[in-house]
Amino acid sequence: MEKKDNQLILKRLGIDTQEEYFVYVRQDCPVVRSEGFESQTRVLVRKDGENIVASLNIIHSDILLPGESGLSESAWQALEASEGDTLTLSHLPPLDSFGYVRGKFYGNRFSKSAFRHIIQDIFDGNYSKVHIAGFISACAGNHLDLEEITWLTEAMVNAGERLDWGRENILDKHCVGGLPGNRTTPVVVSIVAAAGLTIPKTSSRAITSPAGTADTMETMTTVALSMEKIREVVKQEHGCFVWGGAISLSPVDDLLIKVERAMDIDSEGQMVASVLSKKAAAGSRHVVIDIPVGPSAKVRSHLDALKLKYFFTVVGMALNMDIKIVISDGSQPVGVGVGPALEAKDVLKVLRNEKDAPQDLKEHSLALAAPLLELGGKTEPGEGMAMAQEILESGEAYRKFLAICRAQGGFREPDSAPFTHDLVSTQQGKVTSIDNRLLAKVAKLAGAPKAKTAGLECLVKVGDPVLAGETLFRIHAESKGELDYALTFAKTQGEVVKIK
Amino acid sequence: MEKKDNQLILKRLGIDTQEEYFVYVRQDCPVVRSEGFESQTRVLVRKDGENIVASLNIIHSDILLPGESGLSESAWQALEASEGDTLTLSHLPPLDSFGYVRGKFYGNRFSKSAFRHIIQDIFDGNYSKVHIAGFISACAGNHLDLEEITWLTEAMVNAGERLDWGRENILDKHCVGGLPGNRTTPVVVSIVAAAGLTIPKTSSRAITSPAGTADTMETMTTVALSMEKIREVVKQEHGCFVWGGAISLSPVDDLLIKVERAMDIDSEGQMVASVLSKKAAAGSRHVVIDIPVGPSAKVRSHLDALKLKYFFTVVGMALNMDIKIVISDGSQPVGVGVGPALEAKDVLKVLRNEKDAPQDLKEHSLALAAPLLELGGKTEPGEGMAMAQEILESGEAYRKFLAICRAQGGFREPDSAPFTHDLVSTQQGKVTSIDNRLLAKVAKLAGAPKAKTAGLECLVKVGDPVLAGETLFRIHAESKGELDYALTFAKTQGEVVKIK
Repeated sequence: MEKKDNQLILKRLGIDTQEEYFVYVRQDCPVVRSEGFESQTRVLVRKDGENIVASLNIIHSDILLPGESGLSESAWQALEASEGDTLTLSHLPPLDSFGYVRGKFYGNRFSKSAFRHIIQDIFDGNYSKVHIAGFISACAGNHLDLEEITWLTEAMVNAGERLDWGRENILDKHCVGGLPGNRTTPVVVSIVAAAGLTIPKTSSRAITSPAGTADTMETMTTVALSMEKIREVVKQEHGCFVWGGAISLSPVDDLLIKVERAMDIDSEGQMVASVLSKKAAAGSRHVVIDIPVGPSAKVRSHLDALKLKYFFTVVGMALNMDIKIVISDGSQPVGVGVGPALEAKDVLKVLRNEKDAPQDLKEHSLALAAPLLELGGKTEPGEGMAMAQEILESGEAYRKFLAICRAQGGFREPDSAPFTHDLVSTQQGKVTSIDNRLLAKVAKLAGAPKAKTAGLECLVKVGDPVLAGETLFRIHAESKGELDYALTFAKTQGEVVKIK
Repeated sequence: MEKKDNQLILKRLGIDTQEEYFVYVRQDCPVVRSEGFESQTRVLVRKDGENIVASLNIIHSDILLPGESGLSESAWQALEASEGDTLTLSHLPPLDSFGYVRGKFYGNRFSKSAFRHIIQDIFDGNYSKVHIAGFISACAGNHLDLEEITWLTEAMVNAGERLDWGRENILDKHCVGGLPGNRTTPVVVSIVAAAGLTIPKTSSRAITSPAGTADTMETMTTVALSMEKIREVVKQEHGCFVWGGAISLSPVDDLLIKVERAMDIDSEGQMVASVLSKKAAAGSRHVVIDIPVGPSAKVRSHLDALKLKYFFTVVGMALNMDIKIVISDGSQPVGVGVGPALEAKDVLKVLRNEKDAPQDLKEHSLALAAPLLELGGKTEPGEGMAMAQEILESGEAYRKFLAICRAQGGFREPDSAPFTHDLVSTQQGKVTSIDNRLLAKVAKLAGAPKAKTAGLECLVKVGDPVLAGETLFRIHAESKGELDYALTFAKTQGEVVKIK
């Protein structure tokens, strides 16, 4: 069924469409007529036996000459294309696995093999964003039962790489996000690795928040390591704090998360599958999961947290993982700094046992390290806290932190931003609440996470008495423009810190 | 919050992305950094007070120079842009109405005002395809009750123009598609208008089928008329057969249908809302709806047809429309021709009462004209059939058909294709079934509907005895290449016509 006029010469247009693949052809291109393609048709694009599925865009200008075609950058990379290569376009085979999604709308359960087919098709790039949105919608509203969540998680683990560390009892931690400044990972990993347990922690960069753990650690050491280098660090120091983006763990999860974010949908099934598929693919055996609960955190009520605890525990068991849930206070930021370098400073103060170290960050880190020490078999149940405290306060954790940083490429002190501005209270009273989401927004407008030293310091806690003129938070920025931008927002959105 | 560096000079790139809006900016563009935009971010694009929502694509080549930006063709038209115009990009306000969609996933009902907000946002271009896919998913699986379907229909009618013909008792017909060759509209409209009733019929072009009524009529007259011209034709002749694309009736429906098609989802609620919103917006009062039922038709069982009948009737009542449902035989094509000109020839034979006119097309057309004559008050219930037959067989309908064509711009005979090939039976036996979908596919591969004379003639009916070597269907094409293309498919897909 293939015809010569389906072949087109590649020209690089350099259009970044993120992970979504596009192919560009001229309106007068024979394949458009012969195959009946129109703009946005999903087509099979082949080059030297490799193929991808892409959306077609039709070009009515001379950015392409007759006989030429273009690819979005992601498609260009996926096909390892070069200028002058030949592309062939053809119709897609039918997307059979989407039938399971339609079935779910009519109340059918997903079977184990349904999930396998769907996730494989998403992995292979056969689902457009519209199809992914359909799949997410079918899972939304908590329409997945426990068995379905388990099957989904397994399917996600199996689509992608799976790490094997060559040892037992791999430990890990995760925080169900939404809380600015909650940067416990560097402290927890240092304590646990100092105890001789293995905790090869991979972290993400910020996606919608002002800082991810990888962004924070990057102000102090190198985080983008090859898999080989990671193995070396973990072998030597038992722990690491590296960016997970370089390793392809549960790559389908990354695609699902993008569409979930666009729809602002967070079903518990997808959340459980997302977290546990990453952990299982990372080879983790014992995982402590932090669930902060608060009115402007991701999980809003204690009951929701308990349900998640149940789901994480049961699905974890099915995947041969011990899950320990820590439900924590998510009513306000943890620590003082919000933004990569500012959070790094908090972390260093805690590790160095400085007098002005944020107590809440220290306590929260200990609360997560304690169960890991117990799960790892270093101490009896109930005695993890004392051990964690001893390792931290003796300076052992800090020494381990420095050793890991050195193994990753060296330690450096985080920088400071050149511009700051204090936002002060206009009245006397008591802090009644702090809005995590607005606070994060101010830090982002100030330039975080791209501007590493940008963000803010939140200088009050809920319950604190304040005087008129007292500083509530201090904005840090790398340019005057960004400082003003954040300030304008903070001033017009007067309810970031509520005082009564 | 607006800054100078958000402004960019427009360059025309001529990228056709269909109705989806895209804006193209360089990676080194200040707005990308200052606003934290990445590729695929949805942004607000403003020009001279007009604004649209578009997806951002970031350009890494010199198809744009520093300070320049581009728009997809649809966005270019929506903003009435010219080279050198200034665009301003900024963040989107939150999409509040999508909260109702999320609520539906959790089992909430849509309220009347929820539908109003959602449909208005879709109308305004605030929903990306991902959001539309979410909305369609929420309605899929028949999760809408009758009241919700009614509210959805009302909301769709209210988003867009609504025609007023200045007279009462406007008649209309619709066919719930999926049946090749089922080209009853020209015959039905001619009969009904000949009786003096008003039937201002707007039709669509083919989207996934080998011919739409507008494509067929276009081989005989002009169908793309202005609203003013349509009013003139209807005033003079009481009927018309024009393309509905020039008039914006229920434009949200067009957007929903595109995404439904991509997901291959056809929920009954969406179908009822789609059909009735178009009819209500067209000012119709009495509507006959043809539901062909068959294993390869859109509606597969008599029970499904009865459920649709119930829904159409009740929602129609709420919108002050009389709906009459005709459940018909959808087990095989109607008439002989499949493709614009070939179907036109069938229509002309029926109107001219020629001896070899396809009887099934004639009977089906009468079955739809009869209830319209009754609904329109031209005859008593039960006597419509006799009246329709009299109007058709006396030549009155044909004279009306020619008069309408002349009013629309003139009548011409449809052309014939230069290339044909007969597909013959390899065995003796009886035709046991004809696959509507495969047959449509052969006609499309032969070039229909873009090549007006392309398509096929289906020369057998289910139950016909056939000899080995007897022609089953004849492929028509405008080029040798397309003929071969269709033939190869027809031969490898041996089950288009089943013989036993």
